Amino acid sequence: MTEVLPDWDILDRRLLADRSPFARVYDEDVRLPDGTVISQWLRVELPAFIIVFTVLEDGSVPFVRQYRQGARTWTLELPAGHIEDGEEMLTAAQRELREEAGIAADEWQYLGKYIMDANRDCGWCHAYLARGSRRIIENPDSGDVGDFSLHWLPLDDVRRRWLAGEFISAPTSLAIGLALAQL
Amino acid sequence: MTEVLPDWDILDRRLLADRSPFARVYDEDVRLPDGTVISQWLRVELPAFIIVFTVLEDGSVPFVRQYRQGARTWTLELPAGHIEDGEEMLTAAQRELREEAGIAADEWQYLGKYIMDANRDCGWCHAYLARGSRRIIENPDSGDVGDFSLHWLPLDDVRRRWLAGEFISAPTSLAIGLALAQL
Repeated sequence: MTEVLPDWDILDRRLLADRSPFARVYDEDVRLPDGTVISQWLRVELPAFIIVFTVLEDGSVPFVRQYRQGARTWTLELPAGHIEDGEEMLTAAQRELREEAGIAADEWQYLGKYIMDANRDCGWCHAYLARGSRRIIENPDSGDVGDFSLHWLPLDDVRRRWLAGEFISAPTSLAIGLALAQL
Repeated sequence: MTEVLPDWDILDRRLLADRSPFARVYDEDVRLPDGTVISQWLRVELPAFIIVFTVLEDGSVPFVRQYRQGARTWTLELPAGHIEDGEEMLTAAQRELREEAGIAADEWQYLGKYIMDANRDCGWCHAYLARGSRRIIENPDSGDVGDFSLHWLPLDDVRRRWLAGEFISAPTSLAIGLALAQL
């Protein structure tokens, strides 16, 4: 059996929109192993981000509530944020949990990396489960744009809402599923 | 307490790239409830899609293996695909399960809708769990571009690989988590 070529050749790549550091959009012309050429394959490069699930000793899970322009609605999401230039992934996770929820944690378990759109990129999500959490800042200030509030949901409620599809942000529901399976 | 305005005003919206029906990229200028104006908020409109988890009577779960240009690698993913113009969501799910895996199913449970990027859109994922599945086509032809193969994984193996982060496509790992919690 002939070995299939491992990937598609990128023949050309053109920057269509540069909103660095938040987004870069490209057209790519690609050649498949069978010779087929596809032009203008849109690629959307968004920054890698981390997302964190944690439970406090009292059984509550921190969520942030925000208006989200992409979703055109308000969401409840796990603490999350971009990995900054040169920043370690774990450092980013610890920073976001502190900035958004005012929490520090003793143990950090990596739950994997996930591409948001396998066709177009749209960014990699790195999920964490933090254990041994405690509040270190009473009223954290995330510095994010727009209206932003912190909410504490009991673990049972998180599971019920997750199963009911109430957490409409994909990275949040993905990370909740992975974390609940570890608890 | 003053009621917070429910959303952000879209002051202007400009099409940057039109790759219909696969993708449309916009710049949006938005005004937040506090008056702050943000220009060039990039929005990436990708088609809504369905994704299906099912288990055959013999305990095997169908996956598709493909090279994925966005991820720059090969992935194992659940059967999934775009909802076509005018198509019912459930019809799309049934069609994709038949086309990609050669399977028909008796019961369809909706597991919710999830936006892939709450900031920029990047498409809505609609997840399904199909029960009472049986193979109706021995060698299905998905019609998708590129190298494409169908794989059957035992349910226990799916759970183990999911927890290990082996399913790097976010919609697949999201839907696996939701489905396993229902089984």
